[in-house]
Amino acid sequence: MNVEYMKHALELAKKGTGYVNPNPLVGAVIVKNNKIIGEGYHHIYGGDHAEIDAFKNSTEDVTGATMYVTLEPCSHYGKTPPCAKTIVEKGIKKVVISLKDPNPLVSGRGIKILQENGIEVVTGVLETEGTKLNEIFLKYITSRLPFCIMKTAMTLDGKIASYTGDSKWITNEASRNFVHKIRNKVSGIMVGIGTILADNPFLTTRLENGNDAARIIIDSSAKIPLDANVLTLKSKAKTIIATTEQADEKKLKALETIGADIIVTPLKEGKVNLSYLMKMLGENKIDSILLEGGSTLNYSALDEGIIDKVYTFISPKFIGSDTAKTPVGGHGIPLVKDAIKLKDISIHRFQEDMMIEGYLRKND
Amino acid sequence: MNVEYMKHALELAKKGTGYVNPNPLVGAVIVKNNKIIGEGYHHIYGGDHAEIDAFKNSTEDVTGATMYVTLEPCSHYGKTPPCAKTIVEKGIKKVVISLKDPNPLVSGRGIKILQENGIEVVTGVLETEGTKLNEIFLKYITSRLPFCIMKTAMTLDGKIASYTGDSKWITNEASRNFVHKIRNKVSGIMVGIGTILADNPFLTTRLENGNDAARIIIDSSAKIPLDANVLTLKSKAKTIIATTEQADEKKLKALETIGADIIVTPLKEGKVNLSYLMKMLGENKIDSILLEGGSTLNYSALDEGIIDKVYTFISPKFIGSDTAKTPVGGHGIPLVKDAIKLKDISIHRFQEDMMIEGYLRKND
Repeated sequence: MNVEYMKHALELAKKGTGYVNPNPLVGAVIVKNNKIIGEGYHHIYGGDHAEIDAFKNSTEDVTGATMYVTLEPCSHYGKTPPCAKTIVEKGIKKVVISLKDPNPLVSGRGIKILQENGIEVVTGVLETEGTKLNEIFLKYITSRLPFCIMKTAMTLDGKIASYTGDSKWITNEASRNFVHKIRNKVSGIMVGIGTILADNPFLTTRLENGNDAARIIIDSSAKIPLDANVLTLKSKAKTIIATTEQADEKKLKALETIGADIIVTPLKEGKVNLSYLMKMLGENKIDSILLEGGSTLNYSALDEGIIDKVYTFISPKFIGSDTAKTPVGGHGIPLVKDAIKLKDISIHRFQEDMMIEGYLRKND
Repeated sequence: MNVEYMKHALELAKKGTGYVNPNPLVGAVIVKNNKIIGEGYHHIYGGDHAEIDAFKNSTEDVTGATMYVTLEPCSHYGKTPPCAKTIVEKGIKKVVISLKDPNPLVSGRGIKILQENGIEVVTGVLETEGTKLNEIFLKYITSRLPFCIMKTAMTLDGKIASYTGDSKWITNEASRNFVHKIRNKVSGIMVGIGTILADNPFLTTRLENGNDAARIIIDSSAKIPLDANVLTLKSKAKTIIATTEQADEKKLKALETIGADIIVTPLKEGKVNLSYLMKMLGENKIDSILLEGGSTLNYSALDEGIIDKVYTFISPKFIGSDTAKTPVGGHGIPLVKDAIKLKDISIHRFQEDMMIEGYLRKND
């Protein structure tokens, strides 16, 4: 039965998607006499942890009950008191955990508190699912760098637009809706200045009650027009211009005046240094980025090794051409044997479109 | 029980793959008292039809038995006597058929003979599977044009080679083995002169006991070197050079002297007219072609509408570059809404590689 209750806790955790960053997604279920008597999740950054939410929602006395929780209960005083202590105080008898907390402030200390107080602890239940659920948190908490997802969309002959530049639409509506869901999940959306100049996008999520991510524009010379949609739109999220010393000082001042954040990075081959930028964004609590770059930015991002995960949409159509753009441009890798490879591939269908999900092979 | 016996008959039919062209693949199962008492298939072009093979392999008296056969029994005197008459003579009581024969020489006449002789006939059992099994035959018998399969292989960023031209290997061994199986299934393999000059391939199947297909080289100016592997190799199958008036007469003579077949087509935008070529190849009993073209030939083939089916292999890796070749080059289509689209998509896995199979949308 462990597995079913944990599955439910994982589903609960997902409800916080887009609202808890840079905290982890966590769900909790309290079970007594083979019956769920309480459940909860971490709703929003700064709000109750999942365990506390589950206690608050309990319909019966929780003494002697078992708690299923997707992540090790915390042991430190942060925005809320440590959950491990509350679990002890509430008289829980057994705690089943999916994933141990990789946060250096917790790392096994929550489990220790529980065990020292006579609570039976089981770990590793649906650990793979628990890990995937919090892939963003796991990277961010251990490296303070954003978890970076590169999203591309191409035809079956590898084009992201026709030779005339037309790209409406490579993928179908179902695929594009999924992208809006990802936009809602991350704390930053990153594009190159080329995309801004070509499409003048808003880069907002179009989900109802959606949560806009920060817009990050890679613009080494600060060419962005002051009336670009990403600068004039109304949104709770900020727009960040990542630029270099090549940018005009006055232009940067003007951008700041209309509310944009500016990050100046060292030059890397005449462009924004993306690795440096990731550090700066991580310090600004950006725990996750969806890269929707053009082909040049995508190559730089892969080349600098900042990408963790890829979503590649493929639409079963052909448009031909020797000059049409492909998902990844730039200088390129000379030999196929040195290609940048993916692992843990899964394939999803969006009606006739396909989407390939995979993770970058690093050090393996 | 119909379905299980028909499934078995379809499996038997597949055993003839690569050996029966331009005949259809056919399997037959004879059932009496819920027991298979005979089974057979069309082994080789000119050999026994499946029904006759099944009779020869019968272990009991077939009088009163039911025959499951994947294609309507023939009614005409061709290389063998009509199977419908033999079925009547043998005293079969019931015939279950997957697919009616689209061959204008048969088209329902086999069924009529059976019914006129008091045999119960059921048609359309696993018709979709029966149709797919004989997609080559179905096109060829109704149009006298080869069924044309375009096979491409690319990275997840749409490249068929790196910018340096390196393509060893885009796909893994499992994917490449599958291509050898397709090569064994078709009666022609078609490439452009660019592929011959770049890779000097043999274009043979590497399957044990494999059946080489005719090699068809699209070479508008007959630039192929006389010592190219496709001209000097030992193979039962012929090499066909498809060329135009732009070719040097002496070169064509030299090619003929060393055993190559020459087809001269009218010019189409300075190149081989592929539609005309398909008619000529059809007249030469080439019922199926695997196009393993470079990107230019692939575009011409799609543009001229000769492609029926596509196998696109995708390997989960990136090699980048603005200049690396993509699966389909050429002039290209200006607007995405006018793209050439596929239908009946299915996805296959070859370890980490993926293969997308689909059919061209024509008139729909």
